[in-house]
Amino acid sequence: MNKDIPVISLQRLPIYLNYLKTLSSDEHYISSGFIAKALGMGEVLVRKDLAYTSAVGKPRSGYIKEELISAIEDYLCCNRKRSAVIVGIGALGRAILAYEGFTNYGIEIAYAFDSDKNKIGLEVAKKTIWDISDVKRKLKGQGVELAILCVPSSCAQSVADLLIDCGIRAILNFAPVSIKSPDSVIVRQIDVAANLAILSSMI
Amino acid sequence: MNKDIPVISLQRLPIYLNYLKTLSSDEHYISSGFIAKALGMGEVLVRKDLAYTSAVGKPRSGYIKEELISAIEDYLCCNRKRSAVIVGIGALGRAILAYEGFTNYGIEIAYAFDSDKNKIGLEVAKKTIWDISDVKRKLKGQGVELAILCVPSSCAQSVADLLIDCGIRAILNFAPVSIKSPDSVIVRQIDVAANLAILSSMI
Repeated sequence: MNKDIPVISLQRLPIYLNYLKTLSSDEHYISSGFIAKALGMGEVLVRKDLAYTSAVGKPRSGYIKEELISAIEDYLCCNRKRSAVIVGIGALGRAILAYEGFTNYGIEIAYAFDSDKNKIGLEVAKKTIWDISDVKRKLKGQGVELAILCVPSSCAQSVADLLIDCGIRAILNFAPVSIKSPDSVIVRQIDVAANLAILSSMI
Repeated sequence: MNKDIPVISLQRLPIYLNYLKTLSSDEHYISSGFIAKALGMGEVLVRKDLAYTSAVGKPRSGYIKEELISAIEDYLCCNRKRSAVIVGIGALGRAILAYEGFTNYGIEIAYAFDSDKNKIGLEVAKKTIWDISDVKRKLKGQGVELAILCVPSSCAQSVADLLIDCGIRAILNFAPVSIKSPDSVIVRQIDVAANLAILSSMI
């Protein structure tokens, strides 16, 4: 939808949003310089990033805080309710199911799936775990386009293929393996160990 | 350490590494074109990324696979043993403690900390949970420089300050809040909900 924005700028929008939400309700205006200083970033960068949203800052006073929050939320589609599925209810899957931060972005985890017969039917964070073999039937006509993949590397590609076949168009993949997908599907990988290794090689 | 490499290239090195490790041991040589095709990336990009490591590809045959794996592992310091601490043993902290992928990068979770008196002394994934108020004493002289922060947003900055004071130089932060740190300390944020929102706004 927002393909004109560089991904690196898009990635910073939630950071601004989280910061703005921590500010006292007394703060009516906020300047790009103030945000930049608070987040340890350059002011020009902040201004450029925010220019992708519909927010308009005024030369002296800056942005109206609530307008800026709304503009970022609109850009990130926080007010458009969307559903996601999660597949793989191991330790990480459970942690993500229990995490309540998705609602801030208008995202609801609609279904949880696993292939382990011992888990199917159980409830985690008030969500029933369904059999992955039922995924097609469950998602049919539901318009669910987002998926979180917490399965082992060995089956990540086959589960991704299945999800794509069910209409999923964006996958957040926690397995430490690259997923191949058609051009119409976006995959983003979060490899926790690799992230720590990258950090480590930077110090 | 490897500050000459763009972060975006550095982030792709673990992807190549994971892929190379999945290949059959029969494969002696591998070309950048083959890697590029398998991962759905451009060949020039792959060659540029790999040129940051010490691996040298030959015009017709490509790289010797085992040499390339070693070169990437060297670049990511996988053979240099390093210790990390994790703070905040909620659902996510438990999942990360139980995750075994860190050893591939030579990283060991040495200590787990929490402030909840009910958790202190318990064992999770064979690691004892220590009181965060003991962190300074525990880390003294240990040379631990990496930390994983799984605490609530409200205390992420104060815990980060404490860790930095104990000699931590790189922090992987899962709290959805920006951490301010001195220039000598690197912080990388993983905000799961924001990642899903970003994906969602891209489709």
